[in-house]
Amino acid sequence: MTRGRLEAFSDGVIAIIITIMVLELREPEGPDFSDLRKLLPVGLAYLLSFVIVGIYWNNHHHLFSVVERIDGGVLWANLHLLFWLSLVPFATKWLGANPSHLAPVALYGVVLLGGGSAYFVLTRALLRLHPPDSPLARALGRDWKGKVSVLVYVAGVALAWVATGLALACYVAIAVLWLVPDRRVHRVLSDQGSRPA
Amino acid sequence: MTRGRLEAFSDGVIAIIITIMVLELREPEGPDFSDLRKLLPVGLAYLLSFVIVGIYWNNHHHLFSVVERIDGGVLWANLHLLFWLSLVPFATKWLGANPSHLAPVALYGVVLLGGGSAYFVLTRALLRLHPPDSPLARALGRDWKGKVSVLVYVAGVALAWVATGLALACYVAIAVLWLVPDRRVHRVLSDQGSRPA
Amino acid sequence: MTRGRLEAFSDGVIAIIITIMVLELREPEGPDFSDLRKLLPVGLAYLLSFVIVGIYWNNHHHLFSVVERIDGGVLWANLHLLFWLSLVPFATKWLGANPSHLAPVALYGVVLLGGGSAYFVLTRALLRLHPPDSPLARALGRDWKGKVSVLVYVAGVALAWVATGLALACYVAIAVLWLVPDRRVHRVLSDQGSRPA
Amino acid sequence: MTRGRLEAFSDGVIAIIITIMVLELREPEGPDFSDLRKLLPVGLAYLLSFVIVGIYWNNHHHLFSVVERIDGGVLWANLHLLFWLSLVPFATKWLGANPSHLAPVALYGVVLLGGGSAYFVLTRALLRLHPPDSPLARALGRDWKGKVSVLVYVAGVALAWVATGLALACYVAIAVLWLVPDRRVHRVLSDQGSRPA
Repeated sequence: MTRGRLEAFSDGVIAIIITIMVLELREPEGPDFSDLRKLLPVGLAYLLSFVIVGIYWNNHHHLFSVVERIDGGVLWANLHLLFWLSLVPFATKWLGANPSHLAPVALYGVVLLGGGSAYFVLTRALLRLHPPDSPLARALGRDWKGKVSVLVYVAGVALAWVATGLALACYVAIAVLWLVPDRRVHRVLSDQGSRPA
Repeated sequence: MTRGRLEAFSDGVIAIIITIMVLELREPEGPDFSDLRKLLPVGLAYLLSFVIVGIYWNNHHHLFSVVERIDGGVLWANLHLLFWLSLVPFATKWLGANPSHLAPVALYGVVLLGGGSAYFVLTRALLRLHPPDSPLARALGRDWKGKVSVLVYVAGVALAWVATGLALACYVAIAVLWLVPDRRVHRVLSDQGSRPA
Repeated sequence: MTRGRLEAFSDGVIAIIITIMVLELREPEGPDFSDLRKLLPVGLAYLLSFVIVGIYWNNHHHLFSVVERIDGGVLWANLHLLFWLSLVPFATKWLGANPSHLAPVALYGVVLLGGGSAYFVLTRALLRLHPPDSPLARALGRDWKGKVSVLVYVAGVALAWVATGLALACYVAIAVLWLVPDRRVHRVLSDQGSRPA
Repeated sequence: MTRGRLEAFSDGVIAIIITIMVLELREPEGPDFSDLRKLLPVGLAYLLSFVIVGIYWNNHHHLFSVVERIDGGVLWANLHLLFWLSLVPFATKWLGANPSHLAPVALYGVVLLGGGSAYFVLTRALLRLHPPDSPLARALGRDWKGKVSVLVYVAGVALAWVATGLALACYVAIAVLWLVPDRRVHRVLSDQGSRPA
């Protein structure tokens, strides 16, 4: 089983998710800048979600560039990740309409937590198929970023009950953490290029 | 004629189907958890449909990994399958809004029955192009799962007139049956790897 | 310039067009079969459009399987075709809501006429890049089906002013004409396989 | 890191953007030609946006056909471009509803300016990875079209405060300027074909 179709299908689903969010951006009610300004919370929620889904695509891209084999379990772990990502437009829409209410802020965090956990599960399913000295295993290393993300998302959801602003700060912080592409994979790929494995 | 573009087009259509269903998830009417709870039936219908469409993609992926040639008949058999799958978001939306009414439950089953039958027809169209000892023919074998699915969907639709819960149980049962990826194809692929065909 | 990305992009656009039409299928207003029955005109319009867009994909697939080179003009001729196809969901929605009014029936025909003409222009743009004895040139031959389609669409649009039923019959007739995949391409491909070109 | 998945993902996102715009084309309110005529501004805005997004795809296609390597920075520069393009349907919808109001005309220009600037940044990110005598560097040359586009978009947005018609004329002018595919890339590719690099 090759990874080509899994990548193509994931690209398709993520491309749709990242694009249909903008469909939620209903046109302003009137023709003036003041009407546009009312959409600012929705627009910021869209921007945050675009960046987060973009990070998933980037990391998925980097991750699978060192994958050597997949199996049925990986297909389902990947679909599980796509399921959580497919909920992002829904959670974004609700958050954009109610950016300082507990429930939408908490739900948004739960969806991100689901995505982060699913990504972690996907890396475990892949590690089971690759030897400990494979490029994949070395690239993932101890995967502190994956573990930190899940922990901060848990904290963020809990903090939503304290102050929604704190919860949103947690979500943004994880986005910033991941904005830098995964240098671990880069390093391993460069190592492979410069000296025989 | 190669299978590459058929796979790419099917990936595209299935990716869109599995993703646009979430567009039906309208944002909750208010900003509270109680507003979210009202969407539970729609959410469960979405989850079931996501799993079912995911199963189709998985099985399609496995099936075409042992396909060696296609023809115009296969293209249309595949489009026929995609047609039924494209109705899933519509049937899901109606089922989610009316989860215990006869008509939506029956329609959902009819759409699944259409998809199951179309998948069966697609396997027949492929078998006509492959010799009886081909990996495809051996992988499909007697295809009891395909036949059972169609029969249970027929039973489910009929049971909707008796009790909608029974019908839904039939649909869920078939999803569970298929959740395990098609080990027949796996076995044949492994056989090919370990000894010359 | 290779044809790979043109095919992939066209697959993506056509996959979206064929799938988003079902988004126009709003859920029935009530939970009964009688509510579903009211959607019959919309459903039939969707079915016709699904088949027509499916035919375009099939023919596009066959056509490009014998294409050896493309240029910037072909890219734009292809985008021109995709533009007309992208109007199909809009025309279908209006036709489904008003299946026996002049304007929606005529508009539907104009969109099909635009698509048929654009396909014809695309084949001309491709023929300019291929010698007269190329597989593409031989596969297209005199292209009577392409020419007949355009003529019948013109007749259909004109007949909409006489009787909308006659116009719809013209549109359905062309769909039936094309449902058979392009045997000309098949024949040339088979010839290539069985004897040296 | 290869460019294959970046191209596939970009194709997917651009295919969705160019196609979902037509979803904004709501069906006419009544069944008559006069109802259709009311949609003329929306239709023209759709046509302009279709052409502009088509130009981006064409130029992206040409650009990446001479790209030899990418890195994480290019991935993000590309996502940045896709972000601005994803706002085109939203801006188109608002412009179509209010074609002679300042705010929608200015916003449309800001989105085009964002796209043009992001494309320029993407070419710079690519040039950093390629030597000055690479096909990419020679193909881009001094890139006067990219620079002119950004300048005219700035002028267009400013002119929206003077007369919205002048602003729209600027946007259309840049579309016409780019409609001709990038002959610089063509020339370099032809040179490579006719003599050894």
